[in-house]
This record gives sequence, C-alpha cells and structure tokens, in this order.
Amino acid sequence: MNPIYRDMPTTIFEAMSMRARETGAINLGQGFPDGPINQQVIVMACDAMHHRSNQYPPMVGLPELREAVAGWYARHQALDLNPAEVVVTSGATEAIAAALLALISPGDEVLLFQPLYDAYLPLVQRAGGTARIVDMDRTRWRIDRDSLASAIGPRTRLLVFNDPMNPMSTCAHPDDLALLARTCLDHDLIAVCDEVWEALVYDGAPHRSLMQQPGMRERTVKIGSAGKIFGLTGWKLGWMCAAPPIARVLAKAHQFLTFTSPPHLQWAVAEGLDTQDAWIAAARDEHQASRDFFCAGLQALGLATLPSAATYFVTVDLAASGLVLDDIAFCEQILARAGVAAIPISAFYAESAPTHLVRFCFAKHRSTLQTALDGLARAL
Amino acid sequence: MNPIYRDMPTTIFEAMSMRARETGAINLGQGFPDGPINQQVIVMACDAMHHRSNQYPPMVGLPELREAVAGWYARHQALDLNPAEVVVTSGATEAIAAALLALISPGDEVLLFQPLYDAYLPLVQRAGGTARIVDMDRTRWRIDRDSLASAIGPRTRLLVFNDPMNPMSTCAHPDDLALLARTCLDHDLIAVCDEVWEALVYDGAPHRSLMQQPGMRERTVKIGSAGKIFGLTGWKLGWMCAAPPIARVLAKAHQFLTFTSPPHLQWAVAEGLDTQDAWIAAARDEHQASRDFFCAGLQALGLATLPSAATYFVTVDLAASGLVLDDIAFCEQILARAGVAAIPISAFYAESAPTHLVRFCFAKHRSTLQTALDGLARAL
Ligand SMILES: CSCCC(=O)C(=O)O
Ligand SMILES: CSCCC(=O)C(=O)O
Repeated sequence: MNPIYRDMPTTIFEAMSMRARETGAINLGQGFPDGPINQQVIVMACDAMHHRSNQYPPMVGLPELREAVAGWYARHQALDLNPAEVVVTSGATEAIAAALLALISPGDEVLLFQPLYDAYLPLVQRAGGTARIVDMDRTRWRIDRDSLASAIGPRTRLLVFNDPMNPMSTCAHPDDLALLARTCLDHDLIAVCDEVWEALVYDGAPHRSLMQQPGMRERTVKIGSAGKIFGLTGWKLGWMCAAPPIARVLAKAHQFLTFTSPPHLQWAVAEGLDTQDAWIAAARDEHQASRDFFCAGLQALGLATLPSAATYFVTVDLAASGLVLDDIAFCEQILARAGVAAIPISAFYAESAPTHLVRFCFAKHRSTLQTALDGLARAL
Repeated sequence: MNPIYRDMPTTIFEAMSMRARETGAINLGQGFPDGPINQQVIVMACDAMHHRSNQYPPMVGLPELREAVAGWYARHQALDLNPAEVVVTSGATEAIAAALLALISPGDEVLLFQPLYDAYLPLVQRAGGTARIVDMDRTRWRIDRDSLASAIGPRTRLLVFNDPMNPMSTCAHPDDLALLARTCLDHDLIAVCDEVWEALVYDGAPHRSLMQQPGMRERTVKIGSAGKIFGLTGWKLGWMCAAPPIARVLAKAHQFLTFTSPPHLQWAVAEGLDTQDAWIAAARDEHQASRDFFCAGLQALGLATLPSAATYFVTVDLAASGLVLDDIAFCEQILARAGVAAIPISAFYAESAPTHLVRFCFAKHRSTLQTALDGLARAL
C-alpha cells in the first residue's frame, strides 16, 4: 500500500459532515449551499437524459460545453480562450489531480501556499513531487516576497494557487498576482490556479485570473467548477483550461482518471453558462446577503469575523473575540453545545498552524443561519 | 510535464470514435450500446435531482448504493460483502486509478496480462510501479504457468486481472482463477480485478470472481460498473469492493481523485440494482441475440469469428479468414470503404502484438448491425 494514503486521516470536511449527520447538528463545515440552486439546469439535465445521449461523450468534453466555458470567461473575465483549450473533468478535484499527475515528474519541486486546500499536498506527493510550502502572512493573507524567493530552487517546476482562497475568503492582491507571474516567468514555472470560487466574489469586485498577467497565458492551468457556479456541489463537473501544448498533456491524465463526464450534466451546464448569467449574479448577491446577515449575527455574539470577500465562508478570530480555546476545542464545543459544525483553520495547514481561527459556511437559508446563531448564543 | 503523458498518443477508442464522427461511419469501435438502456433508472435520476439532493453525498458513496451493490452481488454471485466494503467511484476507470495509486509504491512490480485494457499500463507506471507483462496464449487466451512464474520477483506486490476480458470476450478458466489465487497467496500479492463485464456473460454461464477463490477474500479489489450493467456508459458510476483494511486506503485515493459522485446517479443506480434484475437479464439476452446475429452475418461474409462468451465484443481472425492485411490496415480499409469503425487488437498490446485480430462491438440495434454488414459485404 502506498504510505501517503495508508497513513492519512479522513478529510476534515467529511469527518465534520459525518459528525453533523450523526448528531443532527447544523452543518456549517463542508462548503455546500442549501439555498439557491438553479432549477433550469436541472430541467435541462433531465431532458438530456430522456432525449439525448447517455453514452460516452468525447473524452475531453462535449463541444457545446467547451464552447460555453470559453464564452462565459470571455463575457465575465475578458479572457480569450479557444474551446480547444478547455478539458472537461468530473469536478475540480479531478482537474487538480489530473493537472498535478500530468505536470509533475518525480523529484520536481512544487510551490504551495499555506493555508491550503486539503487535496493539494497529498496529490503533489503522490505525483512524486516535493512540496515547498510558502506561508502567507496571517493578517492580510498576502505573499511575502522573501518567503517565496527562498522556497524556490533549481528543481521548482510548478506552483499551485487558489484564488479566491478557501479558507480565508480573500481575493489575491494585484501585487501578489504580479509577483507570482514574475516568479513563474523568471523560473520557468507553470501555475495551476484553482479558481473554483470565481463566480462568488462579492461587493462588486471583478475576478481576474493569474492567467491574465503578462506572460502567463501560455503557462497557466485555470481550473473551474460548475458545481460552485450553479450551487450544485454534488454534480462534480469542472474543467481545466490551458494553452494547447499543456491542455494536450492534461487530457491524457484525465483520460486515465475518469475518461469523461456524464453528458446530461455537460449539456445542462453548457446551456446554463450560455443562458443563466442573471441567475448566477442573483445567487451571488443572495450569498452576499447571507454573509452580511451571518456576520452581523456572529458579531452580535461578540465573535470577531475576518473580512469575507468571496467563497461560501467566513472566518472567526477566536483570540480577537477574547476566547482562549484553540480552534479544534472550539469546534468540538460548538458541535456538542450549540449543535453547529464548523472547520478549524488549522486543518488547512501542513505545519505550524495558527490555532485561533475557525471557518463557517454561510451558504444556507436565513432560517438555518438563525438557528445556528441561536445555538451559538446559548453555548457561548 | 510528466513523460508518461507527454509522449502518449490519444487512446484508440477515442481516436476511432472521432474518426467515425467525422466520416459518418457506423461506430463498432468504442464499446457503448445504442440498444437497450434502462428507462426506469433515468426516471429515478430525474426524480432525485428534482426532489432529493444535488449536494455532496458522503465521500465513499450513498449508503443506499453501497447496500444495493452488496445486495446485488449476494443475489447474483453468492458473494458476501458488507456495504462498508464498497467504495463508489466516478466510473470504473476512476476505480482502477484509485486502486493503483493507493496500492502501488514507487519501485513495486505489478503483473499485467496481455492483451490489456489501455488504462492499466500508464496508470501502473504513473503510480511509480514497474509492469511485468504476462502474455496470454493466443489461441485459448489462457495463462501459462511458467510465463506467470517467471514474471514474479521479490518486488512483485500486485496483479491486475480483467475478467470477463476485453478485448477477447473470454471468461477466465477456473484453472486460471485457481492459479492466480495460488500465486497471490504464495507471493503475498493483492489482486485488482476489473470485472466491469460481469453482467454481460452469455449462454447461461455464471460469473465467478477471483475474490471467491480460497484465501482471496482479504486480498482482492473487485471493480464494477453501473454504466455497463444498465447500458448507460456515459453515467460514469462504478465501485471498488475490498476488505476493510484495503477499502480504507482505496477511499483515501478516491477522496483526492473525484471526492464523490453525483447523488442522483447514485440513488438511481441503487434503486436499479434493487429492482431491475429482470431488465438486466433481458438486456443480457438481447446482447446475446445481437452477438449471434452479427457473428452469423460476419461468417456469411467469410470472416472467421472467435468465440464471444461475454462483453459487447467479438473478434475477427483475419488470417483464418484468408485475409493478408494486418489489423490496422484492415480497420483503415473498412472505415474508408465500408463506413465501419472497429478496433485493431494490437492496440491492446504493449509489445509483440498479434496483427491478425480485429474487435467489433455488437451492442447495437439490429438495423445498425445489418447496415454495417452490408457495408462490409461491399468492401470485401
Ligand atoms: C470536496 S469537500 C470540501 C468542500 C469545500 O470546498 C470546502 O468545504 O472547503
Ligand atoms: C472508456 S472508452 C473504452 C470503452 C470500452 O470499454 C472499450 O471500447 O473497450
């Protein structure tokens, strides 16, 4: 058995969701909405199952979806992608796995930024890479130029960057994007950009991809998620976009991971991307309102919240709230006493984790959030 | 970029399907049915999307589906599996990938049997393993005891076995199953058994898994496919079954490949496995009748067919048909002249391939098969 997997605990998202199911707690841990989901694409998916095909679509995805993804990025991010540069995957996790298996050779070094999504490190290691972890500063979640420089060596080939960032709900600062681009060009690196939260950026801010920095068009893999755009996290449909010489190699890795993804979901998402811009914007605004509602409620309980510029999440600073519990103890306590599941931010650290931060998912009905707040009020 | 993927051609299935689409040829290459698909599970999938959840199900699969898989194997193969031993995957390809990434450590040797499905070798190599390829004999497609023995060394950890076998459409001989089991026990190997064709065994023969050989229950990963059982190859829903110490490690690898699979497909397949036994048997009988129809038609054209005991496929022996073309030239010729796409068996060989065998998919409407036969009659 491979030691990377043999010695690994269950992911914190799954563990917390399991405990929430067992205890009947409100699950503000794992990131999925119970609020707006797009009915239109569900109708389209059923129609496709009944009237179109249920057999293997092309391995890289249906042409309709590859075109719709390119069109959506053209409209929303002023990105000029050719449909041939889009490879459809069974969710963004598969895209990350395929990209890392395709682009890493054993012995390569890969830059990761901490806090980090839990899939990155084991996948880099399983691909034969050595992770060099750069700590982001713990107040503004920016990249420190010297930490970055000192993590780079002659074997560095790749960096993995998550923007907007889960768990801290920040959008990358333009100076950080420029720094990363400069670094990629100077050291001939490819950037794998996990941008699954790109449609959930609040307060009128645009999303701009690292791919759009000067020189990055040819050396970026941009990863997106239909599940996040349409509030259907179980659909597990995503994509990776890259210039043709990279996309060709990504497609080979994808071919031997899932080969292809269900055609009814591909047709539905294609039509959704083509026709549901207004719904996507309204869903984003509704999530923003949920954020404001939930943050106000947390603050009223004396809990200090960090800014949430994007994603489904907001982080509470326990120390700034005058609480001395560490993040794991706090999560245990609110699970037991408030009936609320959350995620300790230390779970997003491979080493030297902060222990004063806890992540909550606010992508829920107002009444669910209110019940959670009531539980927290009783428990605190 | 990883050299395994960088230097790899597009899979023959995809390449042939692409050319069939381009030329309007009848696609008897890639294995998917245009015949019976199960309407009931499609209705169930739509119902689940409308009325149940579209969010992340548990990472290892919905309890309903894990139970249904265990129940189906109990009824059809007298296999006693606990639902906790079933890990749901996004298709059998993902199951194979997860199993190989989970069970291989760099430097391990892995036994493969030739002819082999095209995913096995690159996945073994990408997992860091070294493949030792055992040639099956080319008349009865049996495993030679001495070839097997000489492929085993002190670093051998795993074997990958496909039964029923694509492309040769054979079911493993009981003596070969016993030989493989003995080998696994003697050398402490785990067997990864790709049994995706288990519901498509013809002429009243039962399917028996290598897992059921003495001593193999604790050292076998049994892989199955809902797409094949229900004739919905695009659904990409499968599973891997193994004793708990192995299943736990498989789940970790799955967690970082796709994390989970769409819940509507899981509920639909669960209900299908629970309630559609009669349909599954009828679909198998219909495929058997298609096989008989198509083989009779091929034989009437003077083409010698090999026995097809299972799968969607039958192989034509060009040499025994008095044709001097090799398999690739023959496939090119019938694509151009008959408007029929097929697969050269040499594509299933990593080395020293036979060149006189061509695979056809017969899982098509009678009228489609007749049109293909008419085209072949004109071309030959
Ligand atoms: C794939 S489970 C994790 C979902 C998610 O994005 C999160 O909760 O951070
Ligand atoms: C995943 S494409 C290959 C389908 C198949 O099983 C075959 O044609 O052999």
